[in-house]
Amino acid sequence: MSISSRRTNDNDQALVARAKAVIPNGMYGHMSVQSRMPAGYPQFIERADGVHLWDTDGNRYIDLMCAFGPMLLSYGHPSVEVAAENQRKQRNTATAPAPVLVDLAEAYVNQFEHAQWCVFAKNGTDATTLSVTMARATTNKRKILVAKGAYHGAAPWCTPAPGGVLPEDRAHLLHYEFNNIASLNAAAAEAGDDLAGVVASAFLHDAFRDQEEPTLAFAQATRALCDSTGAALILDEVRAGLRLSLAGSWAHLGVEPDISAWSKAIANGHPLAAVMGNNGFRKGAEQVYSTGSFWFEAAPMAAALETLRVANAEDLPAKLKASGEALRAGWQRQSQAAGFGLRQTGPGCMPMVLFDNDPKLETGFRFTQLALDEGLYLHPWHNMFLSLAHDEGVIEEVLEITERVFERLADEP
Amino acid sequence: MSISSRRTNDNDQALVARAKAVIPNGMYGHMSVQSRMPAGYPQFIERADGVHLWDTDGNRYIDLMCAFGPMLLSYGHPSVEVAAENQRKQRNTATAPAPVLVDLAEAYVNQFEHAQWCVFAKNGTDATTLSVTMARATTNKRKILVAKGAYHGAAPWCTPAPGGVLPEDRAHLLHYEFNNIASLNAAAAEAGDDLAGVVASAFLHDAFRDQEEPTLAFAQATRALCDSTGAALILDEVRAGLRLSLAGSWAHLGVEPDISAWSKAIANGHPLAAVMGNNGFRKGAEQVYSTGSFWFEAAPMAAALETLRVANAEDLPAKLKASGEALRAGWQRQSQAAGFGLRQTGPGCMPMVLFDNDPKLETGFRFTQLALDEGLYLHPWHNMFLSLAHDEGVIEEVLEITERVFERLADEP
Repeated sequence: MSISSRRTNDNDQALVARAKAVIPNGMYGHMSVQSRMPAGYPQFIERADGVHLWDTDGNRYIDLMCAFGPMLLSYGHPSVEVAAENQRKQRNTATAPAPVLVDLAEAYVNQFEHAQWCVFAKNGTDATTLSVTMARATTNKRKILVAKGAYHGAAPWCTPAPGGVLPEDRAHLLHYEFNNIASLNAAAAEAGDDLAGVVASAFLHDAFRDQEEPTLAFAQATRALCDSTGAALILDEVRAGLRLSLAGSWAHLGVEPDISAWSKAIANGHPLAAVMGNNGFRKGAEQVYSTGSFWFEAAPMAAALETLRVANAEDLPAKLKASGEALRAGWQRQSQAAGFGLRQTGPGCMPMVLFDNDPKLETGFRFTQLALDEGLYLHPWHNMFLSLAHDEGVIEEVLEITERVFERLADEP
Repeated sequence: MSISSRRTNDNDQALVARAKAVIPNGMYGHMSVQSRMPAGYPQFIERADGVHLWDTDGNRYIDLMCAFGPMLLSYGHPSVEVAAENQRKQRNTATAPAPVLVDLAEAYVNQFEHAQWCVFAKNGTDATTLSVTMARATTNKRKILVAKGAYHGAAPWCTPAPGGVLPEDRAHLLHYEFNNIASLNAAAAEAGDDLAGVVASAFLHDAFRDQEEPTLAFAQATRALCDSTGAALILDEVRAGLRLSLAGSWAHLGVEPDISAWSKAIANGHPLAAVMGNNGFRKGAEQVYSTGSFWFEAAPMAAALETLRVANAEDLPAKLKASGEALRAGWQRQSQAAGFGLRQTGPGCMPMVLFDNDPKLETGFRFTQLALDEGLYLHPWHNMFLSLAHDEGVIEEVLEITERVFERLADEP
């Protein structure tokens, strides 16, 4: 029996054909699965609830992508949806901001040690772009250090694709290697007295490669560099924020950023981004014109306030850590038993799984295809995400599926 | 009796004080009313319904700002909210796009003659930035012509504020005067064989000045320039889109753009932006990496589909035109009777009202303050917006209020 016979995808393929007519490449961005994902992945998702996704052919999957991050608690988390709905009934987008904007800014300022102010936006890219612009406005300097290969958004200054991007869009970026102090200092030397900021991701979470958590020495070196030059240490929390720590992703290292950029998980899927900073960078924040058609939309702010409350009440990072460790241990055991070398890197609650001796990702693609056919939605080359709803029972269910998947993978020629 | 005694603003002022502690400048963007609006304007809005806003002190206003554009039908329009809610119950933000994305892209391709493809985003700035980047990617050229003083968003390449912006961010922008063919051609000559695109707003809707609708000759000249050079004619529909025409804002001139940028009103307040284009620019659209954390959020797309359906079913632009003309005629009559010279420019459904001999906007400020105190929310220096809910009865009510306001204004020293 071919295991792919278990699923049909006629409805999905019909939608794919329609999409190709009216959408460039048939789909845009990281969810253009036709070009970037193994064959058989559905392009469209009709329903989401708890930890589950349903495609348009009625196939159900346990989702380990969490919408690439935004789903932090569960799809349709009841108390978050109630908070959003109650706010929406009062007002959503209107001619001036809602009181909840102040409540949420205060909550963040109380939550994160470095945060003395907050500005809201819609995209992760808004938050990283504002952070860089505010650093330049405060320091009156130009150079920004970014880690080679790091993803900080899809605007011309940071997009991973060259189409339509001009050299001028990146004229004052300099690159360093994450966790490499010598390369950081070399880039800083190149910036000379023109250094405005250093951007660092919460950890190295680049696609297609092993992840790296920041070393204490590296984090301290970025802080020391910024202290000695007056540059902004900008922590990009867009992907990791609220999953690793409720005090900020570098708090356990004793390193506070000057400015932090947030989005994705902060409102459990409702569209919101935030920039926070300390008062040393308030001047620049006041000089940058920050606005957008929906930047005062109130329901996502109410959702964010409730998301933060639940995360605190549930001690979310501890639970995610436990789930991540159980999953990692299970996959380690299963892959060894099946004779595969598996590299699981980065924080356990943001699983990155790569197979040894798999330069073309053929084993990884087959692994995720087999899992998909068993009702588990994994990603072969991007970090995955766990949520509060990925509890002990769900992790057990995931491991039951992957037990079979590793066995089948070992049986294939 | 001081007319300002009718309203209290203690709750608003308490929120303003809290906001000043945790938000740079106390508020960001165009809604930082403390610095940009007449004294007495509330900073915060607690509730919105139909055409009405309520501030946090319980004062109710008829709103002529429509959230600066997004509110097209009414606040909380029932069928739009039902469409969004039904979609939200199925899924909102999830790991892959929803079928409604294809439905909406097809609806736009059917609606607008030039549109052969569509990409969705969140901010108006996303749409204008993508448009420019896609034009550069398609043409492999660099220069973009933009009208002097036009607002196309808040990113470094287009923000009206200089803080943190580098010369490189605007290195390949050249400026022309809206409706001035000689200046358009001069800018094009400066671009030489390096012209990637010409950006034009639906009409000249700059703040603080009389508005101008595009002349036929100017619109045709932009089309001819782009035809002869292969550059993209980019129509910025973000502010005007769906209010003036359901065929595109330049359709009445017989001029179709190559690429159009949309946001604000398209989902009646739900956060969505769109870029549409013809197949001549599809290549560039396919080369630009377009994505964001919430760019596949489904509820705003369902809201947009229903907004478009209602706009078509109601022949919305005709109704808005009638309301705008009634309002303009009433204000013309009232201002003349009270002895004021009033300049009402641009489309009637996006009213711009400036007083003669009022270089410091003192009369305009006082006019809007008095209106506010009578329960009418106007804007002294930005175009206003009408919606489907601003029907004959509401326009009458507005005119009853402004009748008193013009009289009081005339009585003041």
